[in-house]
Order: sequence, then structure tokens, then C-alpha cells
Amino acid sequence: SKQCAQRYAMIGDLLSNGEHDIVLLQEVWSEKDFLGLKKKLAFSHPHSHYFKSGVIGSGLAIFCKHRIHDTFLYRYSLNGYPYMAHHGDWFGGKAVGMAIIQIGNLTANVYVTHLHAEYCREKDSYLPHRVVQAWELQQFIRHTSAGADAVILGGDLNMHPQDLGTRLLRSYTGLRDAYLETSQFDGCEDGMTLIADNPFINKKELVPFEKGIRIDYILFKGSQKAEVHCDFMYTTKGSVPEKPFPYSDHEALTADLRLKPLIAQGTTHDNNDSSKVAELVDILTEARTEVKVGLHCAERMRYTATRTGIMGLALLILELAIAAVPWLALGAEQPFPRTSFYLLAALCCTILITTFLLYLFYTMELKSLQGAEDQMRLAVGGLQERLRGVSVDHTPLRKPPEGEEPSAFDTEK
Amino acid sequence: SKQCAQRYAMIGDLLSNGEHDIVLLQEVWSEKDFLGLKKKLAFSHPHSHYFKSGVIGSGLAIFCKHRIHDTFLYRYSLNGYPYMAHHGDWFGGKAVGMAIIQIGNLTANVYVTHLHAEYCREKDSYLPHRVVQAWELQQFIRHTSAGADAVILGGDLNMHPQDLGTRLLRSYTGLRDAYLETSQFDGCEDGMTLIADNPFINKKELVPFEKGIRIDYILFKGSQKAEVHCDFMYTTKGSVPEKPFPYSDHEALTADLRLKPLIAQGTTHDNNDSSKVAELVDILTEARTEVKVGLHCAERMRYTATRTGIMGLALLILELAIAAVPWLALGAEQPFPRTSFYLLAALCCTILITTFLLYLFYTMELKSLQGAEDQMRLAVGGLQERLRGVSVDHTPLRKPPEGEEPSAFDTEK
Repeated sequence: SKQCAQRYAMIGDLLSNGEHDIVLLQEVWSEKDFLGLKKKLAFSHPHSHYFKSGVIGSGLAIFCKHRIHDTFLYRYSLNGYPYMAHHGDWFGGKAVGMAIIQIGNLTANVYVTHLHAEYCREKDSYLPHRVVQAWELQQFIRHTSAGADAVILGGDLNMHPQDLGTRLLRSYTGLRDAYLETSQFDGCEDGMTLIADNPFINKKELVPFEKGIRIDYILFKGSQKAEVHCDFMYTTKGSVPEKPFPYSDHEALTADLRLKPLIAQGTTHDNNDSSKVAELVDILTEARTEVKVGLHCAERMRYTATRTGIMGLALLILELAIAAVPWLALGAEQPFPRTSFYLLAALCCTILITTFLLYLFYTMELKSLQGAEDQMRLAVGGLQERLRGVSVDHTPLRKPPEGEEPSAFDTEK
Repeated sequence: SKQCAQRYAMIGDLLSNGEHDIVLLQEVWSEKDFLGLKKKLAFSHPHSHYFKSGVIGSGLAIFCKHRIHDTFLYRYSLNGYPYMAHHGDWFGGKAVGMAIIQIGNLTANVYVTHLHAEYCREKDSYLPHRVVQAWELQQFIRHTSAGADAVILGGDLNMHPQDLGTRLLRSYTGLRDAYLETSQFDGCEDGMTLIADNPFINKKELVPFEKGIRIDYILFKGSQKAEVHCDFMYTTKGSVPEKPFPYSDHEALTADLRLKPLIAQGTTHDNNDSSKVAELVDILTEARTEVKVGLHCAERMRYTATRTGIMGLALLILELAIAAVPWLALGAEQPFPRTSFYLLAALCCTILITTFLLYLFYTMELKSLQGAEDQMRLAVGGLQERLRGVSVDHTPLRKPPEGEEPSAFDTEK
């Protein structure tokens, strides 16, 4: 739409001064908008990538001053239901995108993601899906960031700071929340990014959080080769001066991160202390419960689909039998009005096809939920063992790299 | 089926002597079979994981003597078509599974995968899908193995040794083929794993490779912390003595890998030499061409679906118009036989629904193909730049880790 194009033009103006090293966007639903932005930011941010996924997605884009060396996309195994077309998340093909960039002598893995939206906090039928997405997100970050000196995640997580998924993500990966870590902050109260003042927002949906909620995050962590600090963080504050509407339905987040190369010395961080591991076990147990709730729900849905399908089949057979009787007894009059016969047959076939497709879909959902639950169980087992043996031997999942030679790095913003 | 259960019992007998440290299976299509094997191997291989994906898959399983610390599953973005039900690959939810295990002091990342089957080599409509799967497989391995001391991949790649996907995978990851590297080999001619003698195989499908083909692989690589050597490799040779049928439709591969911890010294491997990079650029260019062929094909299919849908809609409107004319002119007789009216309407609706679903599916396919092509283009650009600057500065995608302190490791088989 025209408004949308105008908003992208505004975003382009905002960014083209080149103040931001890395720009992460989550809702670029059309490649045309991406290409428009790319053109506008050609000088300030010569490197960019748009992650493609799903029917209209993934919506994820990155613009960067630094060269993007490599990219990788992980599509979440669960992401809502295609028949919930008015929610549209399924069509967006939600995913997490990774870009590897080189900042001076440091390698940074930058992640951008957008999780399934929450439409009703009281009765959130998408909660198991979002928990599995958070689980897969932490797995993806943990497993792909072993070679990175710094890790940055920016995204619309659609989860409050104390929600299960947020805790799971932060505990497992060790990522730190820029809002909580920053030395200085300027922006909406409590770092809220979805505020009631926004004209694109339906205020009713925010109840009971009248002022707004914080669901967009910048998370980061360093490594044995670099420390990361957040010096300053700010959010946009609703309406843009002299503009007809705000940039987006969410407030934009900006963080000034300072990367400080480290002279490596043995083991600096000990992420294996038992209180943290115990906390992680608790979070994982909670996550497993949530996934099990989702499993029961998906099983019930599949059962309903099966039963409806069988009823449709029975109805079709019954109808054919009734119609066949006078047809077999030649000459006897057809007791069935033709119109109803064909309408009923069409209905039965529709039911059969729909329930078959639903059966397939729920089976896949079940597999994904079971798979996540299996992996979580394995993880809990490992953590509990570590907890029992924590005073005996320190065996981290990944051996900490051995001490490394001192080397000189440039400090980069 | 009974035969299937018997075959799993035979496999269990074969493995339960505990000769194999790690067992990777690709076609365990039922969890019941997995649990049966697990029970049988409880003593010899106490650690196991079954990867769940798709409707009936993923079929991937790992049994291991060593503790599995962590697992992760990546589902390929493209994997055939759901309406090609007789091929069944889509329902299998093909993926690559990863398990992180600790062997002595070394961390090994073990991958197991199964790519889309090839049903007709002359006119292989799944080739773009398989190339994208090989692309995603190499991405997954490269990005998740930075922290590993040794990498092992076992799987049914459904590609010949010189096929594009195999070359792409090997060149990009630096994985070495156990069959080519082994000091000793005992097994089928040319390491074939799909042989004409196998009773489950349709010999006609093998033409023009009358004796068989090699499509199952064990690939491996070491790191700066460990060298990996293949001392011995063998395959089963068709029928099992004193058994009614062979273990599977493929021959089983076994490799004796020797892990040798290294005293790390600066940069041991230089994977950046220009001839290798140039070769990789050629392979990537070929892969991009293949993906573009797939893109055109998917675009044509989507176009056909759209056109068919529009025709269905036009037909429905026309039919309703014809029916409406006498209905509006009250009393005039209905010129349309009722039966044909309802049949035609049902046909139109079926066409509309089907083409709509196909449109969605092809759009997703297009996105995935475009995404892979974008990433390949980025990769080629980076490699070409490296090639041009190869004599000026050595900037590898990942910085080689700095020299590490010498440390003592135990040698493990």
C-alpha cells in the first residue's frame, strides 16, 4: 500500500545517515520493500541480505556496514496453522537468520528472528509452538556460534521478559539482555516496544498491560576473545515528529555495543556453576510441560480430524447404499432428490479431503513436538548429571578452548 | 510387516556384539522398530536418539557407545512434493540430524542424513531439490562444527560420487570420503552400496549402471586438535549367510576411523589455497545453474496452477450465470440438467481448492529455491574476492584459531 511505501521511505531516511552499523528488520513482507530500502541504503549500508521462507516471508532482513561473509537460515519446525489465515503467521514462514560478519579482527554472528505472535495471553493456543521456537532458536545459536567472537541477536520474540521462552533462550545461550545491561537508557518506560499510544495497535489486545509490553529484544554475548558491553540503548517513542504516522507498530530498538578484544587467559567464564545449571533444569522442566500440553492438544485435534473423516466416509457409504437400492431394483423410483444427493456427496468428499490434510498436518506437528520434547529430555538428563557431578569433575558440554596466545585487536564500536 | 521386523531383528543381532562405536541408520520409518532396536542394543549401545520429522520420518537414528551430549535436527527446506505420494519422500520429512559425543578428550560432531531419492537419472525432476539439500547440508555442517574436534557424516546421499551435490558437499566442508581414503577395503566392487543382486531392488532402475552404484557414504574430517584416519572400510556383500534376505535394500557401510589428538601448532591446514577455491567457485556456479533450472520449473508449475485456477473460477461463474438467467426470469424452465449442474459446480470447487493449495506450495518452493540461490551468489562473491586477493591477504571466512597451548590427549579408536 501507499502508506507502507511511505513508512519504508521514512525508515530509509532514518537509517541512511549511517549511524547504525547493523540494522535488523523482522517484518519486510515484500521483496519490493527490501529492494527499495537496499537502494536507499546503498551508500550507508552496502551489505544486505533478505531471508526468504514460507509463502510471504520470512520478513527477516539485515543491512550492514560490514561485509556479510556468510548467511544461514533455520526455519522453525512449528509455526501456527495454515487454516488460521487471519493470523497469518504460518504464511510468514517464521525463521531465524544468521549472518557472519567481520568487525576488525573479530568475527560476529548476528541473528535476526521473529517468533509466532501471541493473540490472546489468557488462552494462548500458540504457546507450545512458541516454546518450541524458542528451544530451536537457542539450539541454533548455541550450535552455530562456537566459532564466533561475539554474538548479537535482534528480534521480535513476541514474549515478555519473564516468559518461559525468554528465560529458556537467555539461560541456555548465556545471551544478555541489552535493556538490562545498558549503562544508559533513553526510551519508552520499562523499555516497552509495543506501546498503547501506537495508532496501529488495538489497545484492547494489550489488556492487562495498559501502557504496553516489551517483546522486542537485543541480546548479546562475548566470548573468550572479546567482551561486549552495552553503553547506551534507546527506543523510538511513538509518533515521529512531523510525520503522519510512526515507523511501525513496534518501537525500534537501538543499542550501542562496544566490543573489546580480550587477551585470552585460560577459562574466564565458568558457565557451569551449579545454581545456573539448576535454574536451567527448572526452566527446561517447565518447557517440557508446556510442550506436553501442546502434544495433548495436537493429539486431540488429530483424533477429532480422524473421527470427522470416518464420519464423512460413513455418511458417503450410507448415501451410496441408499441410492443404490432402487437403482439395483430396476425401475423402482429414486427416493432421493437429486439435488440433495449431489450436495451431500460433495459435502462428504470435502470432509474427507479436509480431514485427510488436517490429519497429515497434525501428524507433522506431533512429530515436531515429540522431537523437541525428546531433545529437551536428553538435555535435562545431561544437565542433571552435570549437577550431580559438579563438585567431582567439571565436564562442560563443550570443552572450553585451551589458553590462547595473546594477540592484538582493534577496538570497534 | 513381519519381514521388516525380522530384518530389524537381524540388524540387532549384527550390531549387538558391540563392534561398532557409532551406528547411523537412515530408514527407521517407525518408532516401534527404533524402540525394538534400542532394547536389543541396550547393553552394547546404551545411548541412542531417534530424530522425528515429517509425517512418517525422519527415519534417522543413531546408536552410540559414547554418551550423546546434545542433538539438533535441521529439516531441509525442499523435499519433493506431497502429491507425489508414490515416491513418499515428502512424507519422510528428510533432514540432517546432529549428535555431539565425547570420545575421550575429543568432541565429535556426528551427522546422519538421507537426501531425496533419485527415481530417474535421465529426467531427474528432483535434482534442484537434492542440490538445495546438499547446499543446506554443507551449511549446517560448516556452521555447527566450529567447536568440534572431529566431524563424521554418515548417510544415504542418493548421489553418485561425482554428482554435483557430492562435490559441493565435499569441497565446501573439506570432508573426506572414507572409501577413497581408507588404507584397506573389503566389500562390493567400487564400494557400491546399491547393488543389482539385492532382491529388494528393481534392476531396471539401475540402468545404465548394471552392477550397481555408490550412493551411501561415510565422510569425515579432523581439526587442528585431532587427525582422523580411515584404517579399514567394508561393506556387506548382498545376501546374508543363512538368512532369508539381506539386511536392507542398501549394503551397510562400516569404517574404522582412528582419531589422533594433535599437539596444536599454528595453522596446520591451509584450506584457502587458490586452486581449491577456484574449484569451489566452479561447483557453486554449476549448483546455481541447477537451482535456476528448478526455479524456472517451479515458476512454470505455479503459473499452470494459477491459470487452471482462473479457468475453474471462470467456469464456475459461467455456470452460475447460465443457471441464474431462467431463475431470474421466473417460471422459465431450467435449461440445465440438475445432475450436471451439481457435478460441474463440485468440479469447479475442487479445481479452485486444489490450485489454491498448489499455488501456496509452489510459492514456498520458489522462496526456498530463491533463498538458496541468493546464499550461493553471496558465497560465490566472497570466494571470488578471496581468489583475487589470495596473494595479497589471507582472510579466511573463519579466522583460524590462534596457536594453542600444547596439551596431552589420549588416543582413542
